Amino acid sequence: MDTDPPLQLRVFNLNCWAIRYLSKLRQERIGLIGDTLRQEGFDLALLQEVWSERDYCELKQKLTACYPYSHYFKSGVIGSGLCVFSRYPILDTFLYQYSLNGYPYMLQHGDWFCGKAVGLLVIKICGIIFHVYVTHLHAEYCRDKDAYLPHRVVQAWELAQFIQHTSKGADVVLLGGDLNMHPGDVGIRLLRGWTGLRDSFPDTERFEGCEDGCTLVPTNCFINKEELQPFPLGIRIDYILYKGLSHFAVKCDSLVTTTGTAPGKSIPYSDHEAVMATLCVKPREEAKGSSSAIEPELVDVVNEARTEVRVGLHTAERQRYSNGRMAILALLLLLLQAAMGLSSLVGWDSPQPFPKLSFSLLSLLATVVLLLSMVVYVFHTIEVKMLQGTEEQMRLALQALQDKLSSM
Amino acid sequence: MDTDPPLQLRVFNLNCWAIRYLSKLRQERIGLIGDTLRQEGFDLALLQEVWSERDYCELKQKLTACYPYSHYFKSGVIGSGLCVFSRYPILDTFLYQYSLNGYPYMLQHGDWFCGKAVGLLVIKICGIIFHVYVTHLHAEYCRDKDAYLPHRVVQAWELAQFIQHTSKGADVVLLGGDLNMHPGDVGIRLLRGWTGLRDSFPDTERFEGCEDGCTLVPTNCFINKEELQPFPLGIRIDYILYKGLSHFAVKCDSLVTTTGTAPGKSIPYSDHEAVMATLCVKPREEAKGSSSAIEPELVDVVNEARTEVRVGLHTAERQRYSNGRMAILALLLLLLQAAMGLSSLVGWDSPQPFPKLSFSLLSLLATVVLLLSMVVYVFHTIEVKMLQGTEEQMRLALQALQDKLSSM
Repeated sequence: MDTDPPLQLRVFNLNCWAIRYLSKLRQERIGLIGDTLRQEGFDLALLQEVWSERDYCELKQKLTACYPYSHYFKSGVIGSGLCVFSRYPILDTFLYQYSLNGYPYMLQHGDWFCGKAVGLLVIKICGIIFHVYVTHLHAEYCRDKDAYLPHRVVQAWELAQFIQHTSKGADVVLLGGDLNMHPGDVGIRLLRGWTGLRDSFPDTERFEGCEDGCTLVPTNCFINKEELQPFPLGIRIDYILYKGLSHFAVKCDSLVTTTGTAPGKSIPYSDHEAVMATLCVKPREEAKGSSSAIEPELVDVVNEARTEVRVGLHTAERQRYSNGRMAILALLLLLLQAAMGLSSLVGWDSPQPFPKLSFSLLSLLATVVLLLSMVVYVFHTIEVKMLQGTEEQMRLALQALQDKLSSM
Repeated sequence: MDTDPPLQLRVFNLNCWAIRYLSKLRQERIGLIGDTLRQEGFDLALLQEVWSERDYCELKQKLTACYPYSHYFKSGVIGSGLCVFSRYPILDTFLYQYSLNGYPYMLQHGDWFCGKAVGLLVIKICGIIFHVYVTHLHAEYCRDKDAYLPHRVVQAWELAQFIQHTSKGADVVLLGGDLNMHPGDVGIRLLRGWTGLRDSFPDTERFEGCEDGCTLVPTNCFINKEELQPFPLGIRIDYILYKGLSHFAVKCDSLVTTTGTAPGKSIPYSDHEAVMATLCVKPREEAKGSSSAIEPELVDVVNEARTEVRVGLHTAERQRYSNGRMAILALLLLLLQAAMGLSSLVGWDSPQPFPKLSFSLLSLLATVVLLLSMVVYVFHTIEVKMLQGTEEQMRLALQALQDKLSSM
């Protein structure tokens, strides 16, 4: 633990918005990101939405001299989009896929197909064990009527639990990613309260960049200005969070965001702004106990999150019920048609009540509806189970919290 | 850490085979299991295949006095089937669902619908932190041509990784479950080699029960004798594994299995035999270093596992390809039929080449095939991604292992 002078760590975080065939100027931007990472020589670059492994390979090839270690987390149909470039050896990796992540039939949103997850990397820098987490939570498509809020709350809870359970061997915990939550949202309060992670924006000594640390700003040319109308300055949804454990203390010396364009260029890196933090890690004079003080507000936060999960549970149960009913109706229609078809074949009921084409199309439709609603029924059953499980886990957590608080 | 005299812990593990409407004498057996657990007063009971939450609630009600703490892990469509009854408070729980777990279209096997997972419980007993893991891996339906071997190897790898990453804060690690692997199988060697967990059967000082510690034996009346023909004594697939970390040492004082019937009864608890271990936990005189010695054989085991994953990857790629091809053919057929139907409607081609009923049935079939093969294609794409990810992780692990070995 001979780390005097303190370790300075430069971390880059960016949601790259690199969807093949869909994202504008993807190749130019990936090139630009690679060039910047190479020139700036960060210690760690945490990237999200690198959906194509070809883009990852292009970056890897370009960055191999500067960042000899890298990892791409594979998951879902498309890939998790998460990757990390590091100047220091990656000792181990582990992926946790969120149990809930939108709906496969919401093709226009597509989150389900990405298999959203949190990736853990164990990295040793100057003898200090870093547990680096990179993640991307479910997008928020409509803030007023956010159908995915329960899923995002479950993801935030699983992320918090995953970090708590897997970081016991770490000296420093670092989380970077697009959390798709505003700083005051229940999910982020839950995550921070449960894990004790500190937010680099309010904590930094020096800040430079978009006002309020926003990472989705109206001045970015790829942003749909209308969607950001309620937030004239933009919103902050990309974070670098950190904490030091036992023997180490971490503070954020400086935080920088890009401001609508890449420095010195006419286009931005992405539709999100990059977040760059300089962290200072130094040994604590006195080792911190493993059981840090619990904030009494955490009980309210867990309660609030639990309420969101319950709301999601009711919706999921309703959706499961309507899909079950739809499947039964389609099955009944098919059986009726089969009976009619058979009876007309054996000549019991020769004058068919429908024209043959409509009859065929109707049976086709009934089959499609039956199959799809069965699949969706199964899907919502899984959703119900997971929401029930999370609700139960939160109940247990609340109980444990209250026990701890009352014994304090 | 004043735990003199050593802590004696009695652990019960059983795959309960409690599938509603399918498992024979389910209710009687659940009653019997509850009675035994109450009478025997174990410290911990780890149960698998309690598929119905009603059965869990029945057990919970019966055992509430003896085991005031319990937890049921919800996952998948049916539920994970995993539950734990404990005499000591459960401080925290966490669930990790395996990323691969059979195929949804293999309805006759049904593993996919169970959402197989590993559940972690943090339990404090006499000041000692136990991380208790309960799990159930994918079943083996045909040993000679085991189509699920790659999935089971991935599960064993994820289980090992999950235990390694989440047990850093534990004093004692305990794993109980139906691993569906024989003691010499690559998955169990990988799990034991990677985690350093010890197997209670070869390690116990006193053993009583089925020969070779078998937990699936031909004398059990629920067992299909033919399936066990290559193994006249039976097979051992249910385990209690353990290890002590840093300050604690664990050994197995005695191990007992049931022998085809429940003690003093005419029927067995389940089609599996119960495993009951008495573990002795005592403080180590000298704290063990966190980096235990690596066995050089582990490199071979990881290599062997990686080969299995590669074999699975080839199969998954082939299956994805054939489903993609099938979907394209069905789509082409549908388009052709639509063109024929339209042309006959507008009178270009009045004599229809097929009778109308066959024509309709064919389009119905094509639609069903198109939908199903699209869903299966997406499913195999996820499988390919996960197998590639695991293979890459194993490559990284091998590299790290070899680096460590060469620096020793």
